Amino acid sequence: MSDRRTEIVRAATRVIARRGVRGLRVGELAAEAGVSTSLIYYHFTDRAGILRETLEFIGERADRYTAEPDRENPGNDPRTELEQALLLELQDAAEVRENSTAWGELRASAVFESSLRDDLARATHSWVHEIAGLLGRTHPAGTAPAHAASAERLTALLEGLSVRWLSGSLSLDQARRLLGEAIDAELAYARAGHGRSD
Amino acid sequence: MSDRRTEIVRAATRVIARRGVRGLRVGELAAEAGVSTSLIYYHFTDRAGILRETLEFIGERADRYTAEPDRENPGNDPRTELEQALLLELQDAAEVRENSTAWGELRASAVFESSLRDDLARATHSWVHEIAGLLGRTHPAGTAPAHAASAERLTALLEGLSVRWLSGSLSLDQARRLLGEAIDAELAYARAGHGRSD
Repeated sequence: MSDRRTEIVRAATRVIARRGVRGLRVGELAAEAGVSTSLIYYHFTDRAGILRETLEFIGERADRYTAEPDRENPGNDPRTELEQALLLELQDAAEVRENSTAWGELRASAVFESSLRDDLARATHSWVHEIAGLLGRTHPAGTAPAHAASAERLTALLEGLSVRWLSGSLSLDQARRLLGEAIDAELAYARAGHGRSD
Repeated sequence: MSDRRTEIVRAATRVIARRGVRGLRVGELAAEAGVSTSLIYYHFTDRAGILRETLEFIGERADRYTAEPDRENPGNDPRTELEQALLLELQDAAEVRENSTAWGELRASAVFESSLRDDLARATHSWVHEIAGLLGRTHPAGTAPAHAASAERLTALLEGLSVRWLSGSLSLDQARRLLGEAIDAELAYARAGHGRSD
């Protein structure tokens, strides 16, 4: 992406995290990004195009901060990588909070805006696939469908815990502890030979 | 609640499920309920009052349809009751879809509207408490904090799966199967003596 294009998508993420997807107007986005509305239409064609690239940007940014070495838990075995990929989505850092707020809001808005659904399903699928790969490296004896089901559950749980954290029903520490235990429970379940085998 | 009051709250749930919390204007609600705006203010004081009672209404309605006997899975042992209480939140029925859409939307909106947070945290806590009670009856040897943690995870996962279903990232069958396996995994984890003990 060109610098200008990236700056517009970054501004869209900020606006969505601050006011919601339904608060996103192209005029406001232009003001936030410091560009003209015509430049936005030139780069993204329409609002759906902006939201599609914003979803991609959020996914890539999360990939980056969940792959950073965790100082409290160093090491690079598959289990540690899996834990980091999930637990680093729950951090008290401005970037993580903004990213999680915008992702949760895009998820919630897709219930009402059907034009968002395909792009969101694709972004979700790619995230689930990545976590399933880490589960496969952590527990190579398991089957691919069992890893996929487990990854779908862990990412859906993470979304559920994240919005409880951001909406004030859970503290960050509680959310992290609950997610860490869910990883334990899923791995124990897989090792006992359970999980989807079809 | 008086019939008139119930009718207003029922109308608020419909409007939220159709257009979102941020689409809820008192004038529109009055039109939907077939009453005057002044009657709405008389009963609920303000928008926060409407949302508070709508959360209660949604919770009570879910209590009712998740307590109905499941024809495919009759019986009244604690494990069956636990499964029903969770799995019957994922049904292709107009009432369930409306209730789940409105609940998910209230959850997502509370990230942006801090006035919603306390009522939502209370409603969430009461739901988690109820599921923890069913877990306690299913696995009496477990500790109360472990049941509470497990109930928090299962309900957060259910919220995560529900919004994936409603936003078109998962089919209803997939969501139900994933949740069923999560109940198995949580119970196996509890029986192995894991889970929060503090």
